Amino acid sequence: MTSPTDRIAVLGTGLIGTSIALAAARVGGRVTGWDARDDVAARAASRGRFASVPTMEEAVDGADIAVVATPIASIADVTVRALAADPSVVVTDVGSIKSRVIRDVAEAASSHDISRFVPGHPMGGGERSGPDHAAASVVDGIVWVVAPHDVSSPDAVSLVERFVEAIGAHPIRMSPTRHDRLVGFVSHLPQVASSALMGLAATEEADEPEILLLAAGGFRDLTRLAASDPGLWSEILLANRDEIGRAIDLYVARLLALRDRIRERDSFAVQQAFAEAKEARLRLAAKPQVRAGVAVIQVELADRPGALAELTAGLGGGALNIEDLQIVHSPEGGRGRVHLTVALSAAEQAMTVLEAGGYDPVRLA
Amino acid sequence: MTSPTDRIAVLGTGLIGTSIALAAARVGGRVTGWDARDDVAARAASRGRFASVPTMEEAVDGADIAVVATPIASIADVTVRALAADPSVVVTDVGSIKSRVIRDVAEAASSHDISRFVPGHPMGGGERSGPDHAAASVVDGIVWVVAPHDVSSPDAVSLVERFVEAIGAHPIRMSPTRHDRLVGFVSHLPQVASSALMGLAATEEADEPEILLLAAGGFRDLTRLAASDPGLWSEILLANRDEIGRAIDLYVARLLALRDRIRERDSFAVQQAFAEAKEARLRLAAKPQVRAGVAVIQVELADRPGALAELTAGLGGGALNIEDLQIVHSPEGGRGRVHLTVALSAAEQAMTVLEAGGYDPVRLA
Repeated sequence: MTSPTDRIAVLGTGLIGTSIALAAARVGGRVTGWDARDDVAARAASRGRFASVPTMEEAVDGADIAVVATPIASIADVTVRALAADPSVVVTDVGSIKSRVIRDVAEAASSHDISRFVPGHPMGGGERSGPDHAAASVVDGIVWVVAPHDVSSPDAVSLVERFVEAIGAHPIRMSPTRHDRLVGFVSHLPQVASSALMGLAATEEADEPEILLLAAGGFRDLTRLAASDPGLWSEILLANRDEIGRAIDLYVARLLALRDRIRERDSFAVQQAFAEAKEARLRLAAKPQVRAGVAVIQVELADRPGALAELTAGLGGGALNIEDLQIVHSPEGGRGRVHLTVALSAAEQAMTVLEAGGYDPVRLA
Repeated sequence: MTSPTDRIAVLGTGLIGTSIALAAARVGGRVTGWDARDDVAARAASRGRFASVPTMEEAVDGADIAVVATPIASIADVTVRALAADPSVVVTDVGSIKSRVIRDVAEAASSHDISRFVPGHPMGGGERSGPDHAAASVVDGIVWVVAPHDVSSPDAVSLVERFVEAIGAHPIRMSPTRHDRLVGFVSHLPQVASSALMGLAATEEADEPEILLLAAGGFRDLTRLAASDPGLWSEILLANRDEIGRAIDLYVARLLALRDRIRERDSFAVQQAFAEAKEARLRLAAKPQVRAGVAVIQVELADRPGALAELTAGLGGGALNIEDLQIVHSPEGGRGRVHLTVALSAAEQAMTVLEAGGYDPVRLA
């Protein structure tokens, strides 16, 4: 093949599968989709960038790479069938757990060769699901773990890594067990923490109907993930139960230690714990692979039709690319303040253009 | 006085004090600011909508209402001095804890009359601090608890409630003890949960330098609050230590129950807990006092200068007011997909205008 993104089969066209299909199509890949659910396949195909076919084998036949994006429980079956459908296809998956998937694939394959299977996990998505919410931008710039198992062939691993890069993501190679441990902390624990907080507040609401009226932006940030798909997350958590169990235990120990320091009125210890967390969060926000070289500018905006258009037209006229724009709600419900993100190199020009336009911009970062 | 917002003193001009001052000035109030720290007072006054004076007494003299927005530890002292500075001024505060503030004020006032003191708490703010991040929009549409103590005079309570409404917020009256219990759950617990999660991940990072590379949008949502001011939060949590202790205990119990159900592979129980939390979160998002009658539309955007300007100009030309616009990052770092929020009554028109403009809009909500 001439390019790793030449012919791609996407097996399972939900949010992440369809997003990968759109990203591959965007860079010229010829994509064929398939989904076990006819309505999902039809909705994915209606996005217009790739065709859906009725059988999995038809999608895989002749493909260079097949991306399995089904629910975890069916990854092994689909992977083994895809490996059998074409003698040269490389198969990768996007399951949130790697050890369990690899064990299932090895069992399902029996003595068949699985060296063309390379487990993977794109670290994107969010609380929405389904092909209607898919977009090529879902994979833009995300970290995509490539987690080879013992017999993954080096050529197959290399092909998957080149595919990931070609569609706009950043491949990072690590062992399956290490992957599962780390996502227990940064992906699965946040989901549990969010759902537990929302569940607790909902229980209190039975006695205190006004409690959620007091919920401001912080509570909303913490509980946004709680709107995720319960079936999907139950499956992920059970599949990674040892690691998530350990992560919950460490989290609970930390919460109880904070509670004790608060009860003892140990202001120094509480401040120190919060200061360490703050310092780490600010480092995270500044991670170069996430948001390198950008400036954030705050602008007040009149609340009337066209106000936002005037602002962006003024900046677009200056040939400035707005990398991000957010109408700030503090909390949700308020409006009128905008945070603009522009390249660091364009920050001074943006400030000048905004001031000339009669705005009162404040540089935040 | 002719209006409750006629003459206002703001005592303490940090983020929330300056935001209240800007909101009062916006509706024609004559505002005088004061801050114990000269540099903060100067930065607040540089926002240009109100004057800062060197003494607290000078700010209060002749004011109809004085808003105390200092750190919790100094609220009582400033409140009692403000009550003494003008025989008819009504004093309210914005402290995050009410029982402790009321006890402190009663102690500091000794046998003096405190019927003109009405405790309050605007449920806004966020993780930033200081007058530079202040904006009138911080108070727009927020819930503002008015929590009268035993001897607050009805006239004073009514004046504070009318002031809150006049500057654009929603007053809700409740007892100080009830307020403290409820914010323990929806404000203080989220702060503890966020800092503990970030602290845990930072500790793991010492052994696993790549762990935060795997942190996607969910982790960022959960840990955003961890960037808050450690000194401020230590003070709040210690002042509400009984309530936050109980809230942490209930949260921990819920986390451990979820851990046990996961370990037992009780998929039904895990799904049920997650489904209840999801249902509650969706109800929260739909709360009428927060975001009534809006539609959310997703649009894909080319990544080049002017693309956003074209989009908003097209909608502004249609005389549509964009209530919110967010360039969606899934996770941070990606770009190109925009979520537009418009009034429900304008949703169809927005879809038509977008389609006519060559976009492929998807109605999300």
